[in-house]
Amino acid sequence: MAKNFSTREENYSQWYNDLVIKADLAENSAVRGCMVIKPYGYAIWEKMQAVLDSMFKETGHVNAYFPIFIPKSFFSKEASHVEGFAKECAVVTHYRLKNSPDGKGVVVDEDAKLEEEYIVRPTSETIIWDTYRNWIQSYRDLPLLINQWANVVRWEMRTRLFLRTTEFLWQEGHTAHATMEEAVKETEQMLEIYAEFAEKWMAVPVLKGVKSPNERFAGAVETYCIEALMQDGKALQAGTSHFLGQNFAKAFDVKFLSKENKLDYVWATSWGVSTRLMGCLVMCHSDDNGLVLPPKLAPFQVVIVPIYKKPEEFEAIKEKVIPLKKALEMKGIRVKFDIRDTYTPGFKFAEHEFRGVPLRLAIGPRDLLNGTVEVARRDTMEKETYQMTDIENKVSHLLENIQENLFNKALTFRDNNTHYVDSYEEFKKVLDEKGGFIYAHWDGTAETEQKIKDETKATIRLIPLQKKSEPGKCMYSGKPSEGRVLFARAY
Amino acid sequence: MAKNFSTREENYSQWYNDLVIKADLAENSAVRGCMVIKPYGYAIWEKMQAVLDSMFKETGHVNAYFPIFIPKSFFSKEASHVEGFAKECAVVTHYRLKNSPDGKGVVVDEDAKLEEEYIVRPTSETIIWDTYRNWIQSYRDLPLLINQWANVVRWEMRTRLFLRTTEFLWQEGHTAHATMEEAVKETEQMLEIYAEFAEKWMAVPVLKGVKSPNERFAGAVETYCIEALMQDGKALQAGTSHFLGQNFAKAFDVKFLSKENKLDYVWATSWGVSTRLMGCLVMCHSDDNGLVLPPKLAPFQVVIVPIYKKPEEFEAIKEKVIPLKKALEMKGIRVKFDIRDTYTPGFKFAEHEFRGVPLRLAIGPRDLLNGTVEVARRDTMEKETYQMTDIENKVSHLLENIQENLFNKALTFRDNNTHYVDSYEEFKKVLDEKGGFIYAHWDGTAETEQKIKDETKATIRLIPLQKKSEPGKCMYSGKPSEGRVLFARAY
Repeated sequence: MAKNFSTREENYSQWYNDLVIKADLAENSAVRGCMVIKPYGYAIWEKMQAVLDSMFKETGHVNAYFPIFIPKSFFSKEASHVEGFAKECAVVTHYRLKNSPDGKGVVVDEDAKLEEEYIVRPTSETIIWDTYRNWIQSYRDLPLLINQWANVVRWEMRTRLFLRTTEFLWQEGHTAHATMEEAVKETEQMLEIYAEFAEKWMAVPVLKGVKSPNERFAGAVETYCIEALMQDGKALQAGTSHFLGQNFAKAFDVKFLSKENKLDYVWATSWGVSTRLMGCLVMCHSDDNGLVLPPKLAPFQVVIVPIYKKPEEFEAIKEKVIPLKKALEMKGIRVKFDIRDTYTPGFKFAEHEFRGVPLRLAIGPRDLLNGTVEVARRDTMEKETYQMTDIENKVSHLLENIQENLFNKALTFRDNNTHYVDSYEEFKKVLDEKGGFIYAHWDGTAETEQKIKDETKATIRLIPLQKKSEPGKCMYSGKPSEGRVLFARAY
Repeated sequence: MAKNFSTREENYSQWYNDLVIKADLAENSAVRGCMVIKPYGYAIWEKMQAVLDSMFKETGHVNAYFPIFIPKSFFSKEASHVEGFAKECAVVTHYRLKNSPDGKGVVVDEDAKLEEEYIVRPTSETIIWDTYRNWIQSYRDLPLLINQWANVVRWEMRTRLFLRTTEFLWQEGHTAHATMEEAVKETEQMLEIYAEFAEKWMAVPVLKGVKSPNERFAGAVETYCIEALMQDGKALQAGTSHFLGQNFAKAFDVKFLSKENKLDYVWATSWGVSTRLMGCLVMCHSDDNGLVLPPKLAPFQVVIVPIYKKPEEFEAIKEKVIPLKKALEMKGIRVKFDIRDTYTPGFKFAEHEFRGVPLRLAIGPRDLLNGTVEVARRDTMEKETYQMTDIENKVSHLLENIQENLFNKALTFRDNNTHYVDSYEEFKKVLDEKGGFIYAHWDGTAETEQKIKDETKATIRLIPLQKKSEPGKCMYSGKPSEGRVLFARAY
């Protein structure tokens, strides 16, 4: 499996791309910048969806679906929103093809030109707030807590599988509230949910904070985010939650009658995570032997490979494995019994290792005699022979242990790659030689932020939610700063 | 709730539209022909998705995701496919907007014109078979059993909520096989799954058959379908499963090496159901009092309404309801305890009735004294007072009973509205006076089929899978026929 596969050291970017393709997660399609998510990759995304969906529902949200097309005029209604998205929009201009006059194929039928063009949604604030105007009259209609699972399109110039693709899958929450306080609380709650999902399920430690004004979502008053550190020392934004103030309510004239009988604009939030999380998952845990998946999101947590030469050996092994598989499944463990007879055990070992199955159980004739099973962990690559007695609990504990181990390993990596610097010289040195997260003082101006970005390609990833009050001087301008912010080069 | 709401008798079409909108299932959007699926409607669709998805997975299928855009040239590769879809395609021609020179809003940036236009997928055979070419080399790669949950766009001229919308949600299965026999078997298996889902979950009886050549899917060798009868005597196609032969394999050059080391084209199927099923569900069971939902797909199967005047009465009721709710939920029943204090019990009764909640439980102070609860069935509108003892089993039985009753009622309706006619005069008379399903003899020619359609608007819904061998004469042409086919006017 791992042939023609780059190591992280050789070429991290190539390693990532090879891994995604060769582990059957996704591939590039015939459509520029759009990917095909293959069944193995999609199975992980489905797990992510299921967990997130239940977290949203537990906090009172419901799902709905809004049109994929947005009338062009809607975009102009919120000034900074159109500014942010106009340059990367797929535009539908016609609604019919016709046979080509030269008899070869089909051409666009110019008689079927739309009066107003439609944009393929890059995000749905505008169409949703246009709809909310009719749904919200009084405080009794609030809060409105709606989420949508959908595909969106942003015409990116440079694309990378999962991390930045023209079309991607995501969820976008859009909520409406009677008060600012409630909307801010919602924004923060959803950030917490994203952080919990990243850490508990993906085993990816994240930092929480708010973006600088420069990096805010187009149309937001405040953008909250979670940031993770990848193995090459670059940051990855894993989720954002926006407090939109009354911007979209004003743009789409959405007012409500309060308990006190006063007419006021509605307060809004929006929040989303996307198939980008798949890229984050791969980059955070995988190694030069292939994919490493946290057990909680692995399509199969355990694969059982039979080792045999004669058919009667296989039958004897099968007799042992069927009840073992059942016992594991009774504990909620996802198990695959790999009985393909067109592949050797060696091929299967390599394949499942490459695809990141957390635990591999191998059973041969000698194991049958001894009542044992060979257990191999994907995370540490350790192999050990276990007695079959109580094996389902042993496996269960091992899976928990792997989940924890992956998180702790990533956390240690992040700790070892988090730096505090006080001068711009040191900043540039650390950035080039070590990379990672860098806490430094900043004067709070967009101008300084832009200069640092232009000169170093590092951006302010976030202003920590609980920023330590630590007066200092901006490393660039020398002007006063109230506390450090987090810099990094980022995906 | 039911104010300004048409009856079926007055105007069936208006009744349907009112119902969908007023029961909060869906509404028209600002985008021509596209709908917004509201949370209550989406919750039903989510249930449908979950059940179908598990049925697909149980039969060995996996999910994946393919791009929403299809290069225009792909369409021309399968001749009858492009013929079928070219006239209803949304076409993406540009990838950027820019500020309007007059300073008002944004316009399409003519400098960002695509070299080749993209079509927003109306169905995905072409992009998927272009991808399969790289996935399939040998018989070991087969069968390929893939499903996709996605949105698709067909530019319909006349749209109706759920039944025919420009954008709709669906699943599309696309499988590849080594032999014709296996592909036909798959096509038939998926038809059985659709029929089982319609009957067991939606409580909608369906007939199974194949389409006449005229009505086949564009690019199919054979189209299997299930057809249901609506309360106005019109038929509704609820799902289709296509045997595609080697048409797409040839168009996209997908060959495989067989066990016998021979190179051959791959055999294909595709099959789909869509949000149209929501329209089918509504039209089949609902009545002049609003929505009627089969318990197995109802977002809430039971609503509990407290009846009280004083706060301490509410507290006493709550004390009784909390364990009741828990006991019902332990049996897997979906329960809502409607504690809103901004609405009266009367309003709540009307609302839940209109929204089709299968069972309503009401508890007041007198019930507390007597250890009783009032139970109202939505399907029969019957009310009865039950002792609380063993109430969870009583409720459970009632829900099963409602599910069965809805199916039987629909089946009786269909039986009463299925006719056998032998002359064209009789055919036209039955069609106009009674409607419904009509079995009649047909000579098997496209010409006769077209004439009957032009003259009566009735189409051949299906040729029964188990067609009775019953020689007769075509009601239109008098030519010989081997057995009856099913005619109806249809949605």
